[in-house]
Amino acid sequence: MKKLLLFSALICTFFTLKAQSDKDTKMVRAIFDEALERGESYQMLHFLTKNIGPRLAGSPGAAAAVEWTRQQMMSYGFDTVFLQPVMVPHWVRGKQEKGRIVNSQKIGSMPIKVVALGNSIGTGPDGTVAEVVEVQDFDELEKLGRAAVEGKIVFFNRPMDPKLMDTFAAYSGAVNQRGAGPSEAAKYGAIGVVVRSMSSFKDDVPHTGSTNYALNVPKIPAVAISTNDADLLSGLLKDDDELKFYFETHAQMLPEVLSYNVVGEIRGTEKPDEIIVVGGHLDSWDLSEGAHDDGAGCMQSIEVLRLFKAMNYKPKRTLRAVMFMNEENGLRGGRKYAELAAENGEKHIAAMESDRGGFLPIGFGMTGTDKQLKKFMGWKSLFEPYNIFQFKNGGGGADISPLRVQDVPLIGYIPDSQRYFKYHHTGIDNFETVNQRELELGAAAMASVIYLIDQYGL
Amino acid sequence: MKKLLLFSALICTFFTLKAQSDKDTKMVRAIFDEALERGESYQMLHFLTKNIGPRLAGSPGAAAAVEWTRQQMMSYGFDTVFLQPVMVPHWVRGKQEKGRIVNSQKIGSMPIKVVALGNSIGTGPDGTVAEVVEVQDFDELEKLGRAAVEGKIVFFNRPMDPKLMDTFAAYSGAVNQRGAGPSEAAKYGAIGVVVRSMSSFKDDVPHTGSTNYALNVPKIPAVAISTNDADLLSGLLKDDDELKFYFETHAQMLPEVLSYNVVGEIRGTEKPDEIIVVGGHLDSWDLSEGAHDDGAGCMQSIEVLRLFKAMNYKPKRTLRAVMFMNEENGLRGGRKYAELAAENGEKHIAAMESDRGGFLPIGFGMTGTDKQLKKFMGWKSLFEPYNIFQFKNGGGGADISPLRVQDVPLIGYIPDSQRYFKYHHTGIDNFETVNQRELELGAAAMASVIYLIDQYGL
Repeated sequence: MKKLLLFSALICTFFTLKAQSDKDTKMVRAIFDEALERGESYQMLHFLTKNIGPRLAGSPGAAAAVEWTRQQMMSYGFDTVFLQPVMVPHWVRGKQEKGRIVNSQKIGSMPIKVVALGNSIGTGPDGTVAEVVEVQDFDELEKLGRAAVEGKIVFFNRPMDPKLMDTFAAYSGAVNQRGAGPSEAAKYGAIGVVVRSMSSFKDDVPHTGSTNYALNVPKIPAVAISTNDADLLSGLLKDDDELKFYFETHAQMLPEVLSYNVVGEIRGTEKPDEIIVVGGHLDSWDLSEGAHDDGAGCMQSIEVLRLFKAMNYKPKRTLRAVMFMNEENGLRGGRKYAELAAENGEKHIAAMESDRGGFLPIGFGMTGTDKQLKKFMGWKSLFEPYNIFQFKNGGGGADISPLRVQDVPLIGYIPDSQRYFKYHHTGIDNFETVNQRELELGAAAMASVIYLIDQYGL
Repeated sequence: MKKLLLFSALICTFFTLKAQSDKDTKMVRAIFDEALERGESYQMLHFLTKNIGPRLAGSPGAAAAVEWTRQQMMSYGFDTVFLQPVMVPHWVRGKQEKGRIVNSQKIGSMPIKVVALGNSIGTGPDGTVAEVVEVQDFDELEKLGRAAVEGKIVFFNRPMDPKLMDTFAAYSGAVNQRGAGPSEAAKYGAIGVVVRSMSSFKDDVPHTGSTNYALNVPKIPAVAISTNDADLLSGLLKDDDELKFYFETHAQMLPEVLSYNVVGEIRGTEKPDEIIVVGGHLDSWDLSEGAHDDGAGCMQSIEVLRLFKAMNYKPKRTLRAVMFMNEENGLRGGRKYAELAAENGEKHIAAMESDRGGFLPIGFGMTGTDKQLKKFMGWKSLFEPYNIFQFKNGGGGADISPLRVQDVPLIGYIPDSQRYFKYHHTGIDNFETVNQRELELGAAAMASVIYLIDQYGL
């Protein structure tokens, strides 16, 4: 009798799991269908990029983006839409930069496209001109020491490793040159820095991005040049003691400005106190429309909630689409969000970020406990019909990272990374480089994971 | 003693397999490294698209492409490079087409971009003008019958299904409207055909592509319009009995022209009589540079052999890169290649085609025996580090398909398909839409499979 009961229980469990899995398979399919047939992420991104455009923290564009996303989420009938005030740095590029190779024995003088690094100081109208010391990394810089560096411009020229499949890993391996290079060089008396652009490609497009001045080190101006120009400069330097580099930047850090995170919410029907966040960052660099970085992630996050509304799906938990402010040069929005969550005693059961461009979805990465990871990995097979195969340990996003100290499991949405570092932080990160189906598939994949968390927790 | 021998044999087999697999893992990594660090497919594609450009069979562009690819493969030091003469159809578009909605109750008259379908006849200078009958498929056409269709223009407006992940499946589900639509409509007395473009997107870009007139049915002129214009036209037709469509095309089929397949070969060191083919088609539509369709596949095929040369890999079998001629509107090159293979008693042990664009590699499909498929599937794990997860039953390519009657196993290279039908057969299938890393990763993936076939047969 006992055996029979046990057997019946097993059978019941089996059929319950089977029914659950069938239900989930259908729901995921329905989410993808809605996104592919009637998705609105692409049209939203069109508005954000074309009618608003660049939106660096503190800029009028950022203010417009805040107000427009607020209205857009209201128009979708989310239960609540609210702003979280946050003070943000206000860096401005000012008049367009100038750059030039001068005094080259081979080519004499030649203009070079430069872009000031975000947060950097300007050179003033007279510019900075000096001999150039090329280095690959901080070790080399240290070995050269003050004698070789003082009064010079340091040229950081270590490329991103093209052999790495994950171009974000290649980026991580090179980006300290931009982030810390200017202060490292200043320690040895350098008067300026030129950085090889963080790009996976040899082309003529310079990439900006923030630099972070260390405390108690003189701030020196810093620019990026394209990978092609970096190769050219490096080639010329090989047998030329007299070559100098000139650049002129007009950037400055203005007083902080009041800005906002924008939060749209659908209230949970069963466990409204359990919050699931999906978001991106609303600010972008000033050089382009910020389509991939991170208009795409923001519009996908709004689309996740819109999909549920359109499908008349009532979440058990509370879902929030969050447009974080100031990821690019301060992360103030992400920090503020986590701070308020703690202050208000909110219980976040998961946070997902999309900040790797609007490209083809290939997976998700998660940072959490073993138990959470096991549950998460168990969902993988639901995504294979959509060519999404990567469910991996480790992942998140800059804006949601401050939530981790509250033990919130973090999920990073992973689109294919091959094309990202062609557009990232450039003047060509524009709407035209985003493909509608890729953007929609990403939103659908994100919504599907959010649905599973909503149904089963983590 | 027997047991001990068996055990030793097992151990030996295990270590042999392990060593083999380590060797293959390293070789595949080396192939990817060479392609990503020093690949030449992208530069080659730049030349083909920018210096040669459109190359429809029979055109001067096609002749230039034949001669350039021949020289290019010679320059890489392949053992043999030769041409296979083949007569090809010579269709020309002539003067630019005109299209117009006329007599609309709502909008009066309005110009509409049209492109003549490949192989179609022209309207003559007076154009074709008639009322429009919209249908979704041939069943609907048959039901309407001659009474409703005679003297009219038939408008085929069935969209590609956006819900399908494999956009080639969506294409297959719609393309009979273009391929057979004109003759089907002519059977009922239609005097012209307008086809909704085969596109995964709502945009303003018309897509050409060949139509095939049936024997003993009057040939009528036929054009494609963009998906946006198709929606516009369909909307207007809903309550407008008087609307007419006008179009003017100047296309004609000229006498056949002598052209060529171009074949580059590296001779096998151990089994030179066993041939492995990798190819694409050199011809393209006349509206653009034919970058994805199929400049990419051709350059990748040359790159496969170049990679082996650069790595100093001496294949056991004979490897051939084949640029097939006239896939777009006749398949004469593919047929000729198979015919000559049979005539010359050549033993082809495998043929691979790349003709789905230069996008991110996601897999390979194979048509072969169960035994061949099993071997092929066994290689899958070698590709997972490169995010290539699809090794599937079924696949090939138009140009290699005639080899199938000789029992040659066929392999289709599968890049991600989401973006392809934005560019396919349009005026915007240009170099700029190809990403260098995606193209290179594809070439590396193809070379890796060719390497495995070369090592282990199929």
